[in-house]
Amino acid sequence: MKDLPQGYMVGTAAAGFKKVGRDDLGVILSDRPATCAALFTKNKFKAAPVLICQETLALGGPVRCIMANSGLANACTGDEGIANCRETRALMGEALHIYDEQILPLSTGVIGAQFAMQAWRAAMPQVQASMGSKGAEDFVRAFMTTDAFPKFLSQEVQLSGGTVRLTGMAKGAGMICPNMATMLAVVLTDAEVEATAWQDMFQRAVAQTFNRVSVDGDTSTNDTIVGLANGAAGVAARAQSDVILLQQALTSVLEKLSYMLVQDGEGATKVMHISVLGAKNDKDAENVARTVGHSQLVKTAMYGRDANWGRIIAAVGRSNAEFKADDVRVSLCGVELFAHGQPLAGNFDEQLQKPLEQRDIYVEIVLGQGEGSYTLRASDLSHDYVSLNADYRS
Amino acid sequence: MKDLPQGYMVGTAAAGFKKVGRDDLGVILSDRPATCAALFTKNKFKAAPVLICQETLALGGPVRCIMANSGLANACTGDEGIANCRETRALMGEALHIYDEQILPLSTGVIGAQFAMQAWRAAMPQVQASMGSKGAEDFVRAFMTTDAFPKFLSQEVQLSGGTVRLTGMAKGAGMICPNMATMLAVVLTDAEVEATAWQDMFQRAVAQTFNRVSVDGDTSTNDTIVGLANGAAGVAARAQSDVILLQQALTSVLEKLSYMLVQDGEGATKVMHISVLGAKNDKDAENVARTVGHSQLVKTAMYGRDANWGRIIAAVGRSNAEFKADDVRVSLCGVELFAHGQPLAGNFDEQLQKPLEQRDIYVEIVLGQGEGSYTLRASDLSHDYVSLNADYRS
Repeated sequence: MKDLPQGYMVGTAAAGFKKVGRDDLGVILSDRPATCAALFTKNKFKAAPVLICQETLALGGPVRCIMANSGLANACTGDEGIANCRETRALMGEALHIYDEQILPLSTGVIGAQFAMQAWRAAMPQVQASMGSKGAEDFVRAFMTTDAFPKFLSQEVQLSGGTVRLTGMAKGAGMICPNMATMLAVVLTDAEVEATAWQDMFQRAVAQTFNRVSVDGDTSTNDTIVGLANGAAGVAARAQSDVILLQQALTSVLEKLSYMLVQDGEGATKVMHISVLGAKNDKDAENVARTVGHSQLVKTAMYGRDANWGRIIAAVGRSNAEFKADDVRVSLCGVELFAHGQPLAGNFDEQLQKPLEQRDIYVEIVLGQGEGSYTLRASDLSHDYVSLNADYRS
Repeated sequence: MKDLPQGYMVGTAAAGFKKVGRDDLGVILSDRPATCAALFTKNKFKAAPVLICQETLALGGPVRCIMANSGLANACTGDEGIANCRETRALMGEALHIYDEQILPLSTGVIGAQFAMQAWRAAMPQVQASMGSKGAEDFVRAFMTTDAFPKFLSQEVQLSGGTVRLTGMAKGAGMICPNMATMLAVVLTDAEVEATAWQDMFQRAVAQTFNRVSVDGDTSTNDTIVGLANGAAGVAARAQSDVILLQQALTSVLEKLSYMLVQDGEGATKVMHISVLGAKNDKDAENVARTVGHSQLVKTAMYGRDANWGRIIAAVGRSNAEFKADDVRVSLCGVELFAHGQPLAGNFDEQLQKPLEQRDIYVEIVLGQGEGSYTLRASDLSHDYVSLNADYRS
C-alpha cells in the first residue's frame, strides 16, 4: 500500500468484540524482522497486553507483527487476562506463520472484561484474507474507540543513502495525560536503525510530544507506543547526520499525531497551547502548565470562548511553583492581560472575541523567576465530553 | 432573630454589583467585641479582602462586623483593589458607627474587575435600615453566586455553664478544592472562648471537614472562613470538657456545611465519599483519594450512574501512592468489585443499578500497605457543570 513504508502490510477483521459490523482488530506484518522501540504507561495497573509486550521485548528478539484490538482493554483481568492475551497471540502466530514472540499485542476499550476467545478464533480467516489489501487508515480505524477521526500520516526523509518513509498511526481520545495518553500509537519505518539508537530517538521524541499533551488528566492502563524499523528501504540511519535527520522526522510525526490527539480529545473544540516561561526551572514550569491545563474552570471557560483570565491566574496561584504574585504576566492569544498583580487596561472581551473563536488558543504565562519553560497542549471541557463519558458503556 | 446566636444582627442590601434586584451585600454585626478565628486560601494570588482581613487580624484586636459581597471577587485588582476594599470598609464603619479595624470584608464573584464605589455608597442606607431585621438565610443569600440553595444551620450546645448556640453559613459552589473551597463561610457563636483556643478549634474542624471536599479541584483566590465568638450568652467554654463539647459542635456544623457544598457543587448530582484505607500513611491515602476524586472520568461515570470501576482503578494506578497492584481491593456502594488484580465475579451492573441512583456514592479503596487512611467528599461532573462554567460571565 502506498501509505506504508516498504515491507509492511496490514490486515483487519470485524471480530465483533463490542460492536458488530466494524473493524475492531488490526494487524501489521513486516516481511522481515524489525528493530523495535517501545514505551508504556506508568500506571501501576498495567493491562495484560502491556505486560506481555514488556516481557517479549525483554527477550531482545526482533518483531514481525503488531496486532491491536478495540472494544476491550484486557486490563485488570488478572491471570485469565494474561492467559487470554497469550492465546490470542498464538492464534495470530499460527494464522500468519510467525513466532508468538515476534508479535506485540495492543488493546483498548473497557477495563475489567475478559476477551471472548471464540470471537478471536473466528476472526483469523478474515485477517488472513485481508492481509496486504489494507492500509494505515484501515489499521487506525480498527483500534479507534471514541476518536472522531482517524489519526495517521506519512513522511519521507532523505538520508545520505536514499529516501526512507515514516508512517505514524494513533488513537485517542480520552484518559489522555502525562506519561502518554490512553493512547495507542505505532510508527513504522523502512529505514535500518540500530536498536539502542531507535529506542533513544523514541524516548526523546515522546518526551517532546506525547508526554506534553492532556485531554483530561487521566493516564490509562494500556498506553503503548511502538516503533518498528525493518530496513526494507535498504537505507541505514547510521551516520550521525542521518540519525539527526531521522530523529527530526520522528519528532515531527509524533508532534503531528499528538496535536491530533488533543484536537480530537473527547468532545474537544479547542487546542490550548499553554506556555510557561521564566520559571525557576523546567519542573516548576511544567507544574504551572499542568495545573492550568487540567483546571476544569479554565477548560470550560475556553469552551465558552470566555476571556475569563481570572481562572488562569487562580490556577497559577494554586500550583506549587515558586514565584512572586506581582512578577507574573499572563497573555491570551497574544494579548497581555495581567501584570504587576493587576489587570491591564483594555476591552479584552472585544479584543479576544475573534481569537477565542479559533481552534488554537495560546496561553502564555511568564513567572519572572528564571529560565525554566514548558509547553503543554490541552483540550477544553465541553458538554460532549460529559456525554461521551457518562454514557460510554451504555 | 431566632436563627442567630445572641448579640448578632444581620442587614442586607441590593447594591446592584452585578445583577439588579437581588441582595448582594450582607452584613453581620455583633453588639459587643468578638473573638475571631479565621483561615484563608493558600492560593498565591490572594484577593484584596483576604489581604485586608489578614492585615486586620494581625493587629490582634476584636472584631465586631463581617461584611460580604457577591458579584465581584476583588481579586487580581492590584493597589486599586486594596484601596477600594479599605474605602468600602470605611463606608461601613461610618454607617454602623464602628471602627474600620473591627470589620472583616469577604468578596466573591468575577476575578479582575474593580468595585463600582458609587454602588457601595448608595447601598449604605439600605444596610442601615435593614440592620436587625434579617437572619442567617438572608446573609447567605446575599453572598451566594451559583449556589442552588442557601447553606446554613444552627446548633445548640449544652456547656457546663448553660446553653450556647452555633450558626454556620456558607456559599459554594465552584472552584472547590483543597485548602478550602471558593468558598466563604462564617460561624457565629454566643459562647465566650479564648482566642487561641477558638483558632485551634477552627483549624482542627476545617482540617476534618472543609479541607476534605472537592468539586472541581480548583482553589480560589478568595476562600475565607471566619468564626466569631462574642460571649453574649454569658457562658464560657473554658473547662477542657466544655472546650471538647464546643469543638465537637463546631466540627459537626462545618461537617454539615461542607457536605452541602459538595451536594451543591456546580451541576452536581452526586456526593462521592471516597475512603482510602490501608495506605502506607495518611498522605498516600489522601493522594489516592484526590486522584480518584478529581478524575474527570470517574466523575462523569458517577454522573452517568455507570459502575465503571475500571476508571477508579486507573486513577488509583496513576496516583503517586506506594502499593502493589495485586493487594488493592475496591468496593463501590458496599459491593466489592476488584481484588487480587482482577474483577470479582458478579453482575455488578445489575447489583449497583439502584445504589448508583442514590445521591451518596461510597467508594472504598483498600491498599493493603499499612494504617494510613483518608476520606474525601467529591461531586460528580455533569452537563450542568459545563453549562454553568462555560457561560458564567455572559
